Amino acid sequence: MAEPRTWTAALLIIGDEILSGRTQDKNIAQVATWLNLQGIRLSEVRVVPDVEARIVEAVNALRAQHDYLFTTGGIGPTHDDITVDAIAVALGVGVEVHPKARAVLADYYETRGGLNDARLRMARVPAGAQLIENKMSGAPGIHIANIFILAGVPHIAGLMLEALSGRLEGGAPLVSRTLGCWVAESEVADTLRETERAHDGCQIGSYPFFREGRVGANFVIRSTDLARLDACAADLTDRLAGQGFSITADGI
Amino acid sequence: MAEPRTWTAALLIIGDEILSGRTQDKNIAQVATWLNLQGIRLSEVRVVPDVEARIVEAVNALRAQHDYLFTTGGIGPTHDDITVDAIAVALGVGVEVHPKARAVLADYYETRGGLNDARLRMARVPAGAQLIENKMSGAPGIHIANIFILAGVPHIAGLMLEALSGRLEGGAPLVSRTLGCWVAESEVADTLRETERAHDGCQIGSYPFFREGRVGANFVIRSTDLARLDACAADLTDRLAGQGFSITADGI
Repeated sequence: MAEPRTWTAALLIIGDEILSGRTQDKNIAQVATWLNLQGIRLSEVRVVPDVEARIVEAVNALRAQHDYLFTTGGIGPTHDDITVDAIAVALGVGVEVHPKARAVLADYYETRGGLNDARLRMARVPAGAQLIENKMSGAPGIHIANIFILAGVPHIAGLMLEALSGRLEGGAPLVSRTLGCWVAESEVADTLRETERAHDGCQIGSYPFFREGRVGANFVIRSTDLARLDACAADLTDRLAGQGFSITADGI
Repeated sequence: MAEPRTWTAALLIIGDEILSGRTQDKNIAQVATWLNLQGIRLSEVRVVPDVEARIVEAVNALRAQHDYLFTTGGIGPTHDDITVDAIAVALGVGVEVHPKARAVLADYYETRGGLNDARLRMARVPAGAQLIENKMSGAPGIHIANIFILAGVPHIAGLMLEALSGRLEGGAPLVSRTLGCWVAESEVADTLRETERAHDGCQIGSYPFFREGRVGANFVIRSTDLARLDACAADLTDRLAGQGFSITADGI
């Protein structure tokens, strides 16, 4: 039986604040977790500065290599918000004010001092784009071709993802099981390798930790097939128990 | 006067655990902050899965485009730890056991069950590499050409960075000032743009937030020249005060 098609996405994070270390990124984990539920695998992330040529280069590389490209950051009202212009350049299209975005912003700012030039910047989209709803602050996300342009502020990006939930074609969701064990991973490396080899369609990751003065590890099994996942988890539990190691389901 | 040379680095994060959303990355901010102090600008980040071809491709792109390449992840003892092999392929060299790394590991594991095959994997390096000390767990980081191979666990990566502090050639450290203001950034977008234009060698980033039921923003000015930075910060403070906005030094 042929393996089902895997859908992949890339995430492009646009922002000097991440590269300077000022802001701790939270969008990678958020987008990754959301994509898993859509049956889409996050396959690459890039972070680039607020420099048009760098954004254009990354957008064109990533949109060609993956089914979907998500971007975060650079869609606010200030001079360092250049994502829309850069993506328009990458696509070879112009930039236009989206009438619905303009209406949404005019409504939002009606009681907040009105729509000035800076705020109107947030209604600009690459020509031909559609909007992604944002219940929080008025300014919408943008969808054009296979690109989804989201806000950089994590809770606003999260609302935009929510608006997209269930609307993207994907495959079977990636599911996982975590087994925790108070063992140095180097003691059971052969077991992990052999178990993974014995179970097609499953990957086993090993994540060591030091805690309470002891070493341990969590073994994360991932698959898009729940039956294969359960079989692999049961087999790994048995093999480790056979070596005298006690397993904690759902990890330590 | 010519602007001083800018030294740049890229960071390659290797790991399914980041791309699956299971683990929240902390190495971007840690490496970025450390690089600032060395006078090196973090200019790009990529995250790729534990797949040799993907690592090789990213390593070869990034090591050519930047002065330095840092990698995190994939140097432990288990089957999913393939960073050393992939970087050796990228460089076109073999893999060898480093005698000093072997000695360090033998010493570390003497009272912890001895050196088995899995643990010995952590002494393998691309041929010709040097070691980066790791006081914590024995397994060293690796330095070859312009590539620095670090652990994925953030506190171990941090110890390896500490061992490298002051040893890489860089330029003037990037310094920054943050000004906080209870204002919607869209009200002062023109002021930010004009102030940045008036101060060569300074970039101003605008980072909005919602807090205590109100909107505000932090304006971060970055430069490698402290005098220029101070002049820009003073000018922006004056301009905003002239529009009736109260400024909080060091941000809100």
